[in-house]
Amino acid sequence: MDKYWFTYEDIHKTALDISNRVKASGFEPDVIVAIGSGGFIPARIMRTFLGKPILAVGVAYYDSDDKPSDLPRKVQWIEEAEKKLAGRRILLVDEVDDSRTTLEYCVRELLRHKPSEIAVAVLHNKLKEKRGSIPPEVKRYFAGLDVKDRWICYPWDALDIDAHGVAREAARQA
Amino acid sequence: MDKYWFTYEDIHKTALDISNRVKASGFEPDVIVAIGSGGFIPARIMRTFLGKPILAVGVAYYDSDDKPSDLPRKVQWIEEAEKKLAGRRILLVDEVDDSRTTLEYCVRELLRHKPSEIAVAVLHNKLKEKRGSIPPEVKRYFAGLDVKDRWICYPWDALDIDAHGVAREAARQA
Repeated sequence: MDKYWFTYEDIHKTALDISNRVKASGFEPDVIVAIGSGGFIPARIMRTFLGKPILAVGVAYYDSDDKPSDLPRKVQWIEEAEKKLAGRRILLVDEVDDSRTTLEYCVRELLRHKPSEIAVAVLHNKLKEKRGSIPPEVKRYFAGLDVKDRWICYPWDALDIDAHGVAREAARQA
Repeated sequence: MDKYWFTYEDIHKTALDISNRVKASGFEPDVIVAIGSGGFIPARIMRTFLGKPILAVGVAYYDSDDKPSDLPRKVQWIEEAEKKLAGRRILLVDEVDDSRTTLEYCVRELLRHKPSEIAVAVLHNKLKEKRGSIPPEVKRYFAGLDVKDRWICYPWDALDIDAHGVAREAARQA
């Protein structure tokens, strides 16, 4: 049972903490880019604290024949919007930094449009060997929590949200 | 203080209820289209129960000079993805059906791409005179709850999530 359990309220507070650290760092994004679908909920909560609009992108790890793939593929991108990213400050948001592959891919794609800065924010960073790397153009990286390489049970994946809360309490007291 | 207060757990359960009703109706979407940013969280939760990918769209009520506008304007659309919508079944998701303007706009835009069906799902439908109307092509409309025309306090807008929970309990006991 080496899993992490987080309630929505835990996530909300982590998103607040990250937002405060983004502000304290002096970085004021023009736009939040949410990596779907895991980044949608943290990005929406951070919007409350940062007050910036959200653009959404989606990547998937299967090819157009629905075969599994090691490399991310764009499911949705911000074709029109990204033409306006030149010179803007982007905060790229996802729920977890796991292998780092998705983050590297999204940062590299966004860099092609010459933003003035890209910062990265994730709720959780798994402390493990990473397959991807954050490009050196990224000067600010915010992780809500550094965690061990364990399965994370997010509230939005819960089939039974009450049981999820009970499991989280049990794990906390263990 | 005539407001509604919902916790994340309330929202999660409403999203589950809607998902069950979508399934019971016989409608099996190919794709969920989330209207940002309010639709991001309900759409992400419904994805858990419906198991379908999410595309995100964004509309705003200001023009390109940042002047307020009565008409929605596309902030983000699914330019590439929507070319693949012909013949597909779409579930369009937002948090609230208020004036209905946004829903009508999004349905009409999506209809241009000849999906085989569009259904609409919202967490909350405000019982009030609507400025927009759902086009007759939409045969299925799911509202988690019908509510009076009062301000709705969503958890993701809470500056203090603990105080939000307290206010919701107080409102429930009043």
